Amino acid sequence: MTPRPLITLTTDFGDGGYYVGAMRGVLLSLCPDAVLVDITHTITPFSPLDGSLVLQEAAPLYPEGTVHLAVVDPGVGGLRQPIFVRSRDHWFVGPDNGLFTPFLEHADVFRIHAPEHGVVSETFHGRDLFAPTAARLAAGAAPETLGEPTRQAVRLDMPRPVIRGRHVEGQVLYPDRFGNLITNIHRRDIEPLGSPLDIRVGSYKIPRLSRTYDEGHLGESLAVIGSSGFLELAVVQGSAGDQLGVGRGERVRVRARNEPA
Amino acid sequence: MTPRPLITLTTDFGDGGYYVGAMRGVLLSLCPDAVLVDITHTITPFSPLDGSLVLQEAAPLYPEGTVHLAVVDPGVGGLRQPIFVRSRDHWFVGPDNGLFTPFLEHADVFRIHAPEHGVVSETFHGRDLFAPTAARLAAGAAPETLGEPTRQAVRLDMPRPVIRGRHVEGQVLYPDRFGNLITNIHRRDIEPLGSPLDIRVGSYKIPRLSRTYDEGHLGESLAVIGSSGFLELAVVQGSAGDQLGVGRGERVRVRARNEPA
Amino acid sequence: MTPRPLITLTTDFGDGGYYVGAMRGVLLSLCPDAVLVDITHTITPFSPLDGSLVLQEAAPLYPEGTVHLAVVDPGVGGLRQPIFVRSRDHWFVGPDNGLFTPFLEHADVFRIHAPEHGVVSETFHGRDLFAPTAARLAAGAAPETLGEPTRQAVRLDMPRPVIRGRHVEGQVLYPDRFGNLITNIHRRDIEPLGSPLDIRVGSYKIPRLSRTYDEGHLGESLAVIGSSGFLELAVVQGSAGDQLGVGRGERVRVRARNEPA
Repeated sequence: MTPRPLITLTTDFGDGGYYVGAMRGVLLSLCPDAVLVDITHTITPFSPLDGSLVLQEAAPLYPEGTVHLAVVDPGVGGLRQPIFVRSRDHWFVGPDNGLFTPFLEHADVFRIHAPEHGVVSETFHGRDLFAPTAARLAAGAAPETLGEPTRQAVRLDMPRPVIRGRHVEGQVLYPDRFGNLITNIHRRDIEPLGSPLDIRVGSYKIPRLSRTYDEGHLGESLAVIGSSGFLELAVVQGSAGDQLGVGRGERVRVRARNEPA
Repeated sequence: MTPRPLITLTTDFGDGGYYVGAMRGVLLSLCPDAVLVDITHTITPFSPLDGSLVLQEAAPLYPEGTVHLAVVDPGVGGLRQPIFVRSRDHWFVGPDNGLFTPFLEHADVFRIHAPEHGVVSETFHGRDLFAPTAARLAAGAAPETLGEPTRQAVRLDMPRPVIRGRHVEGQVLYPDRFGNLITNIHRRDIEPLGSPLDIRVGSYKIPRLSRTYDEGHLGESLAVIGSSGFLELAVVQGSAGDQLGVGRGERVRVRARNEPA
Repeated sequence: MTPRPLITLTTDFGDGGYYVGAMRGVLLSLCPDAVLVDITHTITPFSPLDGSLVLQEAAPLYPEGTVHLAVVDPGVGGLRQPIFVRSRDHWFVGPDNGLFTPFLEHADVFRIHAPEHGVVSETFHGRDLFAPTAARLAAGAAPETLGEPTRQAVRLDMPRPVIRGRHVEGQVLYPDRFGNLITNIHRRDIEPLGSPLDIRVGSYKIPRLSRTYDEGHLGESLAVIGSSGFLELAVVQGSAGDQLGVGRGERVRVRARNEPA
């Protein structure tokens, strides 16, 4: 039995209205065997960066051959190009605005052809251009029939931590639903600092690096290495975002405890 | 290979609680081959009108034979009838309260039989009556075994724009997640007015009809013809709803620029 | 044709971020034939009790053989055990914190083996431990290869009503999306009281037990026996939660009308 074609969906359309339901209808009309799977539809509106961070964590966990349809598209109808990308046997379909930055190394990029039939609206390329392209890729169409190879693709400046000697300075990338604050500081960035660590976010000092979210008293703030290897700030059974009053972009500093500030 | 039976779900149950999960269980127990697809579960609570607007845009994009289960049912357990409708080779199953208004032309309407077995609660026909009917239709049951033909079906007064000579007056139907304000004024209603247009919503004057959402400076208000052919009011990378302080039902007026007000 | 393996998902991860999308990717990579169905992802954060109430209503409606993956896991990485449970030909996979309380009678409980390959994070057992176990069960693995039988499993104290002669005192378990207040008082608890009933919540007196949600004037408060047999407080086309200012845990008292208070 050949595997069923798998299409994931990632958008900033929200869970309401007809936008996502319309795309699903187009996908199933053009690729009736497709299995549709949501990654999420609540990407921060107009934020390809947020979309790329979510795709980076979730997309590689899907089987080879999966088509990832992603629409976070503030420039729809404007000058940005519609593209699809082949990267490590995964396909990505959507706007060329940096959404696929984590997958552009060693990737093949194609600019999507204008369709020969059908009208493409200026405001809903998700339904009129990206879903049809994703459906056809999932159904096995050759990429050359759907777009032409291009060398250009927009890359986002992913915010990177700054490492100066034994100080690392990064930032909060986003809070999750539990109020955990995920940073851009990776385990690899702070391992050379040894232990114990001095961790600061805004005016708060986090007493230590814990192994799990519940190593401490109820309401205590702590730091952990999260499930994708990045430093997170958390509160035991509470919300670090609310309790520390900290959000996206807040500066986070880590140094060895015995280093001068 | 015969196509898999396809069932879409549209409700005002929200994404929480057990209501949607319960319906999905019933559907898969009675039609194990069914493919379940969500249109949305965040229809405005108690609003068959909102449900019908979403179905109107999304349902026709699904393949022929699709069964659309839709439950927006403020009158559950009361006098409203449970029905299913065949319209252009699509099936619609739910309460007879106008939810299926866009599909009633040239349609066959059936009143659902009370089930011979099982108890039907007075408060959750989605689980006890509509899901079983949808599952059996999807599994290929003859409609006559599930309900009896009827000529009556409730129709909602869809709000229509008023056209007086070279003035068109409509209203905001709903805001989408991005704060775009979708109106009930169709492209066809305003094309006879020529160009340029004078567009007003509340006390605001929209400077022009644009081709896309990003034709303008950040924060500028504009009007576009949206992806389903209706006039929308938008703000470049912002929320027209928030910025103009405008919501559902607000009056929208369009006239040729050179006409007297 | 053998039925397709069915896996339901129930979490408190919310609809945003990458957590749910990551689990779906793992499930489909390890069990490519699986059909994934959401129960809900908006369980009250950190509340195994809320999760168990939702599972209790939804899970039994799925076909035999279904694997229910449920992750509401405030103690992830701590001392709580990872388990799976076989109960009436359904499987449940998740943390041993009481989430599966409704299914522990006459059940077989297994403690999940640490995986031989792969790294298990301390913060995301949903992706690294529970999803792989659920996928393997769905793919037909023998339970003994995935865990070892155990006799212990954590049970939550489900809040039960107190019945004293002809008085029943219970509480509001949770509000649903419509503001209906679902209580822990079952039809069986109040049937012996006869009719008419005197129903009180907080300082409010509900005039009567109705058959349906719309038996009354717009905005009138009423009580009904809900779809799972429990007493609910509701407002005709309105929100009982908002109108009565009542939430989770509020005391609800029922007695025969002619009994002394």
